[in-house]
Amino acid sequence: MKAVLAFSGGLDTSICVPLLRDDEEYGYDEVVTVAVDVGQSGEELEKARNKAADIGVEHHEVDAVEEFAERFLAPLVRANGSYEGYVLGTAVSRPIIAEKVVQVARETGASALVHGCTGRGNDQFRFENVFRGLMPDAEVIAPIREYSLTREEEIEMAEHYGVHVDATREEPWSIDENLWSRSIEGGLLEDPGNEPPESIFEWTASPGDAPEEPETVEITFEEGVPVALNGDERSLVDIIRELNYVAGEHGVGRTDIVEDRILGFKARENYEHPAATVLLEAHCDLERLTLTRRQLKHKSTAEAEWAELAYQGLVHEPLYEDLNALIGSTQKAVNGTVTLKLHRGTATVTSRESPDSLHRDDLASFESDEDQSGAEGAVRFHGFQG
Amino acid sequence: MKAVLAFSGGLDTSICVPLLRDDEEYGYDEVVTVAVDVGQSGEELEKARNKAADIGVEHHEVDAVEEFAERFLAPLVRANGSYEGYVLGTAVSRPIIAEKVVQVARETGASALVHGCTGRGNDQFRFENVFRGLMPDAEVIAPIREYSLTREEEIEMAEHYGVHVDATREEPWSIDENLWSRSIEGGLLEDPGNEPPESIFEWTASPGDAPEEPETVEITFEEGVPVALNGDERSLVDIIRELNYVAGEHGVGRTDIVEDRILGFKARENYEHPAATVLLEAHCDLERLTLTRRQLKHKSTAEAEWAELAYQGLVHEPLYEDLNALIGSTQKAVNGTVTLKLHRGTATVTSRESPDSLHRDDLASFESDEDQSGAEGAVRFHGFQG
Amino acid sequence: MKAVLAFSGGLDTSICVPLLRDDEEYGYDEVVTVAVDVGQSGEELEKARNKAADIGVEHHEVDAVEEFAERFLAPLVRANGSYEGYVLGTAVSRPIIAEKVVQVARETGASALVHGCTGRGNDQFRFENVFRGLMPDAEVIAPIREYSLTREEEIEMAEHYGVHVDATREEPWSIDENLWSRSIEGGLLEDPGNEPPESIFEWTASPGDAPEEPETVEITFEEGVPVALNGDERSLVDIIRELNYVAGEHGVGRTDIVEDRILGFKARENYEHPAATVLLEAHCDLERLTLTRRQLKHKSTAEAEWAELAYQGLVHEPLYEDLNALIGSTQKAVNGTVTLKLHRGTATVTSRESPDSLHRDDLASFESDEDQSGAEGAVRFHGFQG
Amino acid sequence: MKAVLAFSGGLDTSICVPLLRDDEEYGYDEVVTVAVDVGQSGEELEKARNKAADIGVEHHEVDAVEEFAERFLAPLVRANGSYEGYVLGTAVSRPIIAEKVVQVARETGASALVHGCTGRGNDQFRFENVFRGLMPDAEVIAPIREYSLTREEEIEMAEHYGVHVDATREEPWSIDENLWSRSIEGGLLEDPGNEPPESIFEWTASPGDAPEEPETVEITFEEGVPVALNGDERSLVDIIRELNYVAGEHGVGRTDIVEDRILGFKARENYEHPAATVLLEAHCDLERLTLTRRQLKHKSTAEAEWAELAYQGLVHEPLYEDLNALIGSTQKAVNGTVTLKLHRGTATVTSRESPDSLHRDDLASFESDEDQSGAEGAVRFHGFQG
Repeated sequence: MKAVLAFSGGLDTSICVPLLRDDEEYGYDEVVTVAVDVGQSGEELEKARNKAADIGVEHHEVDAVEEFAERFLAPLVRANGSYEGYVLGTAVSRPIIAEKVVQVARETGASALVHGCTGRGNDQFRFENVFRGLMPDAEVIAPIREYSLTREEEIEMAEHYGVHVDATREEPWSIDENLWSRSIEGGLLEDPGNEPPESIFEWTASPGDAPEEPETVEITFEEGVPVALNGDERSLVDIIRELNYVAGEHGVGRTDIVEDRILGFKARENYEHPAATVLLEAHCDLERLTLTRRQLKHKSTAEAEWAELAYQGLVHEPLYEDLNALIGSTQKAVNGTVTLKLHRGTATVTSRESPDSLHRDDLASFESDEDQSGAEGAVRFHGFQG
Repeated sequence: MKAVLAFSGGLDTSICVPLLRDDEEYGYDEVVTVAVDVGQSGEELEKARNKAADIGVEHHEVDAVEEFAERFLAPLVRANGSYEGYVLGTAVSRPIIAEKVVQVARETGASALVHGCTGRGNDQFRFENVFRGLMPDAEVIAPIREYSLTREEEIEMAEHYGVHVDATREEPWSIDENLWSRSIEGGLLEDPGNEPPESIFEWTASPGDAPEEPETVEITFEEGVPVALNGDERSLVDIIRELNYVAGEHGVGRTDIVEDRILGFKARENYEHPAATVLLEAHCDLERLTLTRRQLKHKSTAEAEWAELAYQGLVHEPLYEDLNALIGSTQKAVNGTVTLKLHRGTATVTSRESPDSLHRDDLASFESDEDQSGAEGAVRFHGFQG
Repeated sequence: MKAVLAFSGGLDTSICVPLLRDDEEYGYDEVVTVAVDVGQSGEELEKARNKAADIGVEHHEVDAVEEFAERFLAPLVRANGSYEGYVLGTAVSRPIIAEKVVQVARETGASALVHGCTGRGNDQFRFENVFRGLMPDAEVIAPIREYSLTREEEIEMAEHYGVHVDATREEPWSIDENLWSRSIEGGLLEDPGNEPPESIFEWTASPGDAPEEPETVEITFEEGVPVALNGDERSLVDIIRELNYVAGEHGVGRTDIVEDRILGFKARENYEHPAATVLLEAHCDLERLTLTRRQLKHKSTAEAEWAELAYQGLVHEPLYEDLNALIGSTQKAVNGTVTLKLHRGTATVTSRESPDSLHRDDLASFESDEDQSGAEGAVRFHGFQG
Repeated sequence: MKAVLAFSGGLDTSICVPLLRDDEEYGYDEVVTVAVDVGQSGEELEKARNKAADIGVEHHEVDAVEEFAERFLAPLVRANGSYEGYVLGTAVSRPIIAEKVVQVARETGASALVHGCTGRGNDQFRFENVFRGLMPDAEVIAPIREYSLTREEEIEMAEHYGVHVDATREEPWSIDENLWSRSIEGGLLEDPGNEPPESIFEWTASPGDAPEEPETVEITFEEGVPVALNGDERSLVDIIRELNYVAGEHGVGRTDIVEDRILGFKARENYEHPAATVLLEAHCDLERLTLTRRQLKHKSTAEAEWAELAYQGLVHEPLYEDLNALIGSTQKAVNGTVTLKLHRGTATVTSRESPDSLHRDDLASFESDEDQSGAEGAVRFHGFQG
């Protein structure tokens, strides 16, 4: 019997392998590991490769960066995807990883789908929803949750099985990375009263360490999707990579938040996402120029729903497509270029222009010689109820 | 016949006086002017006093700072009052100004209520809704709108009537100030493609000019209202004044936005509001710690409606009170202290604590030895529909 | 100069003709009248033709029944279009009438677009929004509103101009009819405390006069649109006509409501709409079988917005298309057949079936032998917040 | 060890007693049963008493009818409590039953709280949420779910334990009754394609069997709560009882619906609730007369959330109180009297009057001589966006 495991090479997923093989309740004599490239660092992917070789399993690496950007990040930008006030990050990478695990399972004839998530977090929901939706007959296994392992116990178990792990007792935080976002959680960060140490950040400078001189970037959108940076047409992947570097250097794109996990727990999370901050700032600004006020108001309602589905990994729920249909319809007008100044942790829109702008200088201006008295009837009935 | 005029001493309101007196369509032989202190600078109030003396009208000055803070800004903080993504500013001062104009009209036996708003903007809606609601039999007069005057024409008319005005043709932007917010509009700012010159800002440093060293502030809330700054109990007015100074110095609290005015025009506006940025950032953060996820989600819907009413000046609409009832009910749990670091244009929450915190270290932690397997059933039915 | 007038041959529109011609403020020597067939009775159309001949104007009749059903009623069914609790009626016919008036204006080279609506009601908003949107340079004229005429004054003016009118002082209510709905307002009906007399109803029997025996109808939907009645494929127009007859005979489809008009007035209205009641009842029922619960919940939010736009005649607002995109996406699954029993004023769904049904007998049944204990984790975390 | 069991005397709860006592996994030597009077028929309560005596357990009966009406039904009326289009019924009785079970557990010193719900339905969620919220240290036991028993197996088990049951294999539907609503499910009703047989209804006549003559009822509301029937002040319990009888006789108040259960199953349900239909019809109508249009629109959003919480039994979620605060604020104006005609399955409002009516005959009337031209400006800017 063969099981396919979503694999990062970290502590959680590494000890899943011996558990799946040796534990009599599972008893999968063949374990196939899968690492999906969603834009995390090369070292991360290498760690998975090496660990898989070390443990002695068949390892697959699936390059999904372009697909991740086009199928998941472009809709996120169009939806201004934010949950409880902050840009979505880790959540949006889970469905595509789960899809690729299923794909490898089909290719290798496996009958079980495995993830290394705990029973506290969100990823168990996101993985299993896709697993069950795409491969309903497969067995779904969550060894860490089923054994109810704490991190401490995992480390002991790894030692027992001879699995070498990087996570030592001294550096306990857990990192997740993709093209769009880097999350840091655990250890002293779990207490919402502790200020995060500067050392947890890798993508962003602190405002104090950022360059003295500001830098200007110009983002061009077509139908709500970024298509050019500083006037050069680029792929979405390239635009995000470049902005992560440039805006990160200027200290833009940190989030420190207590968020509500799916099960009902409140958890303190830190994120870095320089490109995301810049792109959503620009996109929202361009929408205010090109959408009607009724569109803006209603879209924000649809966005809240979109974000909840995305946060929960429910991208196969029909409503997700329905919301994308509405959002896509609004984005027909979201064309144009937004200029931002990056400086000392801030990303400030300084200028915007659009062929679909609804702003009319002639009408709103103090210098307009249009007749103003037409407003009288509108004012008279403002808020009227009789 | 007597008319009472909401009076700033600026161009718009100054030329209303001769129009009300000399124009045969109006013919008010007595004009009483009212300036309401809602926390604008002393020079602003002095300008009104001097201009009124200069023109020769009975002038009233009403101190409404405390009342403004308690009746309008405390609810705004509890409602995280933002319109189209940015903190509400000018809008919330209009109802109390209109109320005081009505009060003076009653005291002086006037039969007409006058404002100097144009027929393009929002304030005509906000003033007249309160005027008509509180004094239905009064005549409501809007000379600038009724004469359909452009700024250019107003300047000429002022010269004609011998009214001295500060607004010259060179410095065309229009400023509005209260305790909470300062708005700048007009002139080259009308074009959303023009970057605002640094000279328009008075309350905030630019990120580049802000101090090298960060500064920490600590805000304490009781039932969602700020009651202490850095551990010292202070009035809301004092907390806002102090934060405007401190956060402004660190470059915090600028907004540059294309917003939808009530009539349907899109207009480019710039704002400064250092205290508002800090307080709402802190308040939202504390809410994420103390409200349930269902409260957070639903409250954001109620907030959008609250903000629309506040933006439109509809604080006498019954729904406004209904929303305050809901929001007030949520705020029973919003108690605690939030620490922020101010630095180079950024205000970053670094720590939060609350006696009503819903965060439970023991449950969400990686080190928890609680049984995790209970989540299985919840995961199995996540997103299920059959 | 030529003006085109939306024309019913009733009192309001009839006196517009002499006003447009004889009044010096207007002075349109040529008036063209347009009656649009949106499914009202043949007598209505004949009345307009005869009155136009009587007054001596060029009269156009535009058959728009099919287009009305396909472009406006099919989306209404998909959106379960209801305003403040009752099915939309009159509102949805206005945009297409206005469009046809514009079309005739273009064909005849007219420069003014005219409607006979008063300054109290909704139709002025609906007509003018389309007029201004489609023909921005045309003059828009509303003689009844501009003269601020009461019905009494209109009758006198008609006598003055020698225009014969049917509306006598004894029968003062105002009727509007289209394929979908018949509205009755005015006279003693204006007081919400007066019970409507049975004589105002023409399309529906009273429950007491309806047949003793119930009748069964079967509606088949494809993508949310009715395509067959009792198993026979029929056009939407035919299905509506047939159901108006059959369900009306059984006393189904009356509404008596105090509704909020656009200006803020509350007005008492009575409607008849037998087919609408049956089709929306069936459509909602089929949606509950085929849409996920998240779709149902979110769609109701989108529907409320859709209905507000439709009620206000804002079908050229971009959000209207956005909402149709979302609704259209949901309707892919809304296929199947619903059976209703019509009896004594009631239309009761008795059975429904769909190839896209999400109902699974095997799972929800009391007789199911599926393991139930999986629910435990879901129950444990139900409403949990920690 | 003592366990307290929510007890109806039906099959599910009856076999819980021997399971709790004899099964070694539970081993509760003392079982106390509780039946809560929420307005179900006296025979139901007697059945529980007799069955408890038969099995030989200590039985408590708690009269909660008044409290149920005041604490749960009055808020429901004010919230127009409906889920997926139909009036809430069974759901709202569960929290008070669970509360009384907890109360008996405290009084009798029990350490376990038990319900007889299956693992498919909603009641397990509703009971356990209250159990865990009010008595966090108690053990919560759900024997039917934990044994994963089908109805068939339950009947066999009952025979094994010598427990006499009424539910035979021939009459398989499951009934639940309270003051407000009667639900019928199971058996052939599980298939949404089967028309419900007339025999399942006990509270309502069919339209065909209802009296020939209509009957008029008059409901008076104070702050949204019914306080008088036909002019006589009555308790809410009495008004509901009387209306259930009168309106039921006229065939009013049946629901046949496919609804979404909490776990995600779609289930077909039938309900009877004559008083509920009449009271909500009247209440909605009175709200349309007395609330502003903004209140009506926003309240419907709050109501949807209220209904979801009520359906899920989450009345101890803080948002539930927040929503009641908003709703309560709106209801200050919901005073007045509504007259309805009951006839052949229909309940039609024929008249309404209120001291807080916002309807103004003088303004909306065709005969009004108010100036209409004031609307022009409002019309001009209707839907405007520039």
